[in-house]
Formats: sequence, structure tokens, C-alpha cells
Amino acid sequence: MQTVISQELLAKANAARAAARRMAYLPTKVKNEALARIAEVLLDKSREILEANTKDIDAARAEGMDEAMLDRLRLDQGRLQGMAAGVKAVVALPDPVGEISEMRTLPSGIAVGRRRVPLGIVGFIYEARPNVTVDAAALSIKSGNAIILKGGSEALNSNSVLARVISDTATSVGLPQGVIQFIESRERAVVGEMLKMRGLIDVIIPRGGQGLIDFVLANSLVPVLAAGGAVCHVFVDQSADLYKAVPVIINAKTQRPTVCNALDTLLVHQAVADKLLPRLVAELGKLGVELRLCSRSSQILKSAGITSGWTNAQDSDFGKEFLALILAVKTVSSLDDALDHIFQHSTGHTESILTENYTNAQRFLTEVDSGVVMVNASTRFNDGGEFGLGAEIGISTGRLHARGPMVLAELTTQKWVVMGSGQIRG
Amino acid sequence: MQTVISQELLAKANAARAAARRMAYLPTKVKNEALARIAEVLLDKSREILEANTKDIDAARAEGMDEAMLDRLRLDQGRLQGMAAGVKAVVALPDPVGEISEMRTLPSGIAVGRRRVPLGIVGFIYEARPNVTVDAAALSIKSGNAIILKGGSEALNSNSVLARVISDTATSVGLPQGVIQFIESRERAVVGEMLKMRGLIDVIIPRGGQGLIDFVLANSLVPVLAAGGAVCHVFVDQSADLYKAVPVIINAKTQRPTVCNALDTLLVHQAVADKLLPRLVAELGKLGVELRLCSRSSQILKSAGITSGWTNAQDSDFGKEFLALILAVKTVSSLDDALDHIFQHSTGHTESILTENYTNAQRFLTEVDSGVVMVNASTRFNDGGEFGLGAEIGISTGRLHARGPMVLAELTTQKWVVMGSGQIRG
Repeated sequence: MQTVISQELLAKANAARAAARRMAYLPTKVKNEALARIAEVLLDKSREILEANTKDIDAARAEGMDEAMLDRLRLDQGRLQGMAAGVKAVVALPDPVGEISEMRTLPSGIAVGRRRVPLGIVGFIYEARPNVTVDAAALSIKSGNAIILKGGSEALNSNSVLARVISDTATSVGLPQGVIQFIESRERAVVGEMLKMRGLIDVIIPRGGQGLIDFVLANSLVPVLAAGGAVCHVFVDQSADLYKAVPVIINAKTQRPTVCNALDTLLVHQAVADKLLPRLVAELGKLGVELRLCSRSSQILKSAGITSGWTNAQDSDFGKEFLALILAVKTVSSLDDALDHIFQHSTGHTESILTENYTNAQRFLTEVDSGVVMVNASTRFNDGGEFGLGAEIGISTGRLHARGPMVLAELTTQKWVVMGSGQIRG
Repeated sequence: MQTVISQELLAKANAARAAARRMAYLPTKVKNEALARIAEVLLDKSREILEANTKDIDAARAEGMDEAMLDRLRLDQGRLQGMAAGVKAVVALPDPVGEISEMRTLPSGIAVGRRRVPLGIVGFIYEARPNVTVDAAALSIKSGNAIILKGGSEALNSNSVLARVISDTATSVGLPQGVIQFIESRERAVVGEMLKMRGLIDVIIPRGGQGLIDFVLANSLVPVLAAGGAVCHVFVDQSADLYKAVPVIINAKTQRPTVCNALDTLLVHQAVADKLLPRLVAELGKLGVELRLCSRSSQILKSAGITSGWTNAQDSDFGKEFLALILAVKTVSSLDDALDHIFQHSTGHTESILTENYTNAQRFLTEVDSGVVMVNASTRFNDGGEFGLGAEIGISTGRLHARGPMVLAELTTQKWVVMGSGQIRG
């Protein structure tokens, strides 16, 4: 089956390529000035932006969108200020482009090193919230890339105005024409076309529901950076300090249950299960968390006379991303059992061990193969900001190029530079 | 069109996955001992290997393979010794796995850093020379990966015995079962199946003719590391020192004309063309190089009374990878013209400027967007060994994860490790 790429999309990709060529060596000062101006203009143009957003809200309400989703779609003066503040925060981040590393002189006399450069053209496919348009454009500009934005159709009016405001402002202060490309079409088929544009788009970053991401991963011939599911595990080891463990589990599960780095499955060493599980039923129950227990865990609670505040887990509860106040709990016999469970069910996103035992901590860090592996910390720390790296465009569970939070550095790559004085190879 | 993946291939991928899990944290000592033993056994089993190779040679000759190709396919005692020496050289390379970098403590109190780990499962698809089986398996073992080998059908008997010898030796000295998988099928369709095994194979590395690589790039849903064409440019700037330039051009074109980093197109600044071109016709002509000249270059030679030793280039000679003693030559008006030509025709492999001018050197290094960009050095230096990095499994013109020579480091990735003491996110 041959996908035909529309003339419009080809034209946008070619315009982006021409822009990317100049973006690659634009001075940091020029990029920062453009971002600072964009932050201002987002507020100057607030009336126009909010009018477009109202159109989206009205259309979505007419089509029966629920209130929670409408709220995600809605912009107001406060949210515009938040978006502008986000752009200013990107100004403050160090520019990764131009960094030279590993430079050394070889026996032949040539000096060889790596120089950090932009990826080129980012194809960004996203759903729902209009603020993502601004975040992605700002990170793309700072990292010296051109970007092709394909947003969700519900936010088309909002996104279109935002992209135009950003693009017009950027070019008015010296960024190359074409650096921000926005796809006006509501057609879902455009996504399929973008995924076939190897050589025209350098990387596809999808952000949205798992349906979108799975579709992209299953169909893209362009390299993809994305989180293909986020089933996060915490293992409470035999030696865990339960005074530390309980708050970490509560934080991982409840601090923001709808996001990818929230805890999904708790693995408990059998030696501490009879102490820990009753406390968790009490503490998590108060916070409205639904506990789904393996048969061994439920047996322990029944033996302790605790027959409510939990239900029996199904097999399918393990390896499930809940994005809600639900926690699957399994009692395991050993660290090895926990490692086996994680090997089978992990999506490679975030796993944490709670332990006071040095060797077990080291084994967990070594043997668990995830983008982020932790000791004695909440899974919620898997985040560009918390890692001290600034705003992220997403989190990757892929293995190549980017793992974990994708920040400015992940929007760049490296090229080798060789400085000689007339050397030839013998 | 749905590709059905055979049970045999799925079984091999699952066996590789189980092996990869253990390979990821196998001590360097164990991997090195296995490699050292493999180097020995390749020589111990030389009779068996050479017998299998004779079968391939006989079959290929019966099917009319030409002598040059037969020579590439042929093994003998000397070549086996070369292969064993190659494996021993991999023993001597530092193990990239386990390296920790960027570790720092954040305001929250967590310490965060990156730890280098294997990619996982490498799908290696290659043609012709049996020594590539040994090189790829050795690099894969050293970098802690499992590998699925799919070689060319001409070398099936040789590759099969080599893979079995390596696999048996590896497991006999403590490497996990399944670490080396070899596909015995001659079916080309297996390649198509491998390209759809996203999540089962972590990376596809094709090595062989451009036809194979283009097929892989155009069809793979698994991330690919490869060279999608290698049209290499050298630009002789106005300020070039021609005493340096001529030997570099000769080396880049003639030292090994059949490989990817050999020179294809020479761009000459108009200010030096009348001095340089006659010398090149004389020097390269002696070495059997066919010169194909743009109209401006040919006009300059005609004006100098040189009417033989060159032909007129066609448009299609620019942007062509010759892999032979042929050189396309174009006279350009300026550095900007050279940069434009490279922007249009480069495949992102290797480009070099010959200049004494600081600013032009810096501009070339900054503005040319290729995996390897050079000043005053032969394009032939784009090589893992010449960069001081050891044996390479190929050269990448892709932008993500690997650019330029792909050595042990490119067969690894990084995960984030977080060490806390009970931190929760506020």
C-alpha cells in the first residue's frame, strides 16, 4: 500500500528544510530574542487567541465533549500567562547547540571531536491542549530545529492562531521563514502521510493518548521518539524502611494519578507484606485509591482480619497503566521474583526499589532495563524539570537516541568534526 | 499489507531477549574470555569452516559469480587468522557498558545520572563476505547485546558454520544460551519480517549494497542505523594550499576507491581552478582516474590547451556515488556556492574543505550538515579505527542515535539512574 504525500505537505517540508538549514547556526542571542518576543506577543494577541479558542470550545460542546476535556481545551488570560512564562523559561535554558565534546588528537595528527547540532525537522503530532503548541514551538526554536505541527482537530482554531502568532513573531525578529509549519487540515490521513516522510522529516514525536502513540509506532518509517506505554513499578524490598516507603508509595500513586509516571503496580517482599499491606489499605483508602490485590496479598490481609478496602486483582491488572487512583499489588517471594515480574510487565518507563540493602539496590539499578530506574524515590521524579534539565517535550520509552525525559538535548544530535593540516590516510 | 512473522523467527527473538537480559550485566571479564576463546576456536575449527566455504564457492561459481565476487566470498587460512586477530582486537577495546556520566544531586536531594547499557537485540542483515559474521558477533558480545544474524544466501554455508562455532564457544564459557542467533533460511522474505519486529528487535543494522540498505530504510518499522548513500565532497577553497590539497584529493579518491568514504565530487573555487585542474588531470590521470568535468572546468582546461584526460560531466554525475576511479569536478564561484551544492547533493556522509582561511574553515564545519565534516584532511579518515574508537559495524548517515562510524558505543544506549533517600515530589 503506497501512501501518497500531498503537495501541501511536501511544500511545508521543503520550506522547513530551507529554514532548518539556517536555524542550525543561528546565534543563541537571536533565538532567545525571538522567544522573548513570542512570550510578549502571546499576551498582546490574547483577544485573537481567546476568540479562536471560543470557537473550538463551542464546537466541541456542540459535539458533546465532556467537561473535563472541555477544561483541557479551554484557554483564558491566566493560562496564556502560563504559556508565556513557559516560553520565558526556555529562554533561560542553556543552548545545547554548538557544544563540542570528546575532542582529541589521533596518532595521524588529525583532531577529532563531536559537535552538537539540531536534529533538523521535527514532526510533532499531538492531541488536545493548545498550550502544547507553544511548548513544542519554543523548544524547537531554542534547539535550532524547524517543526511541523499537526494538532488535534478539536483545537484547530486555537492551535492555528497560536502557530501563526509564533511564526509571524519569529520571522519578524530574524528567524528564517518556514521555521514553524502548521497543518491546517483536520484529516487524520495527514498523520499517515507524515509517518512515510523519511528523509523529509527527521524525527516524529507523538504526544497524546496511547491510541495515537501506538498508531505512530506501528506505522512510522521516520524515527519516532515516544512513550509506548507507562506501566510503573515500585518494589518494596525485605529491608525497606517502611517509614520512608509509605510516603513514597502514596506520592507515586496519588500526587498526580493521571500522568505517565504515576505508580501502577506495587510489588511487596513477603517478609514485609504483613506489616506494610494493612497500613497501605488504611492510608491509600483515605485518599480514595482502589487497591487490587494478588491472592497472596489478599490472604495476608484476611489473616489480619482486614476484609474491606480492597478487591481481588485480575491477571490483567498487572501490566496495566491505570492513569487513575487504582493500584495493583503483588506479594513476591524475593528480589528475583520482583525482577522477573518487572521483566515481564514493564514498558521500560520508570521503576523504583525501596530498600536499605546496598547489594539489592545495586542489583535493581543494574538489572532493571527501563529508561529511569530509581532507589528510594517516587516514580513521579521522572521529569525533565525534576532532573534539572528544563521543560520536556515528552518522555521516551524507546531505546535509541532518547530514553526518559526528552528535553532540549534530545532535540539535538552530534556530528563529528575533523581538523587536519593536510593529512592523508596511509 | 500485513507481514506474518514466522514462528521460527519469533522463537529466535524470544531466545535472544532472554539472553540479552543476562548479557546486559555480564562482567567484562566473562565477555573478554569468551571472545579470546572464540578467536582460538576459529582457528581450531578451520578445516570445518573452510569446507563449508568451499561449498559456497562451488555453488557460486556454478551460478556464474564473477571472480572479484568469488574472491570476496573465499576464506583461507590467512583470512581466518585475520578474523581471529579482529576478535582479539575487540577484546582489547574498553567495555562501554556500565559507564556512568552526568551524575549530580538535584535540589530535591535525589542524585541523577546516566548509565551506559546495551541496546538489547541487534538485527544484523548483511551481504557477501563471511568475515562480517565474525566482526558483528564479536562487537555484539563485547557491547553486551544479543544479535540475530541474517547473512546473504551466497555465504550461507560459511556463515552458518561460523555462527555455530561462535555461539557454541560463547555458551561453553559462560555466555547465555541464545546470545548469537543465526537465520538459516535463504528466503529474502525473512528480511521483510525482521523489519516489522518492532519491540522484538531493538535496532536493525543493514550492511551491504545500496539496494539492501534502501530496502531496509524504506520498509523498517524497527529503528535503523545505516548509511543511506555516501556521496562525498571535497571543496578546494580560494585560499587552499595546493601542495597540501593535491595529495589529499589523490588520497581521498584513489587510496581505496570502492569504499563509502572515497571522494565522489570535487568542488574547486574559481580562483584556484586554473592552477589546480591541470595538475589534477596529470596526477589523477596517471593513477587511472576518469575525470568528469562541469562546463566551466572543461573551459578552463581547454583554455590551457588541455583537451584530453577528461570528459564532460552529465548533471547526474553530481550527487552520484561512484565506488570506482571516477571523479566529478565542478568549478564554483565562492564558498557559498560550494555550500549550496553540498546542501543539494550531499547524503550526509563525509565532506571536507581544503583551506588556509580560518573563517571559511569555521563556516564549513558549522554549515555543512554531515555525519563527518573535515578541514584539510582526506575523506578516507571517516573510520572508527582512524577516529581511535576501534572496529566499526558500519557508518551511519542517519541523524538519530548514531552519526558517522558506528563502534561499540553506538551499540549501547543510556538509562537514567536515580538514587534517593525517600524523596517524594512536592
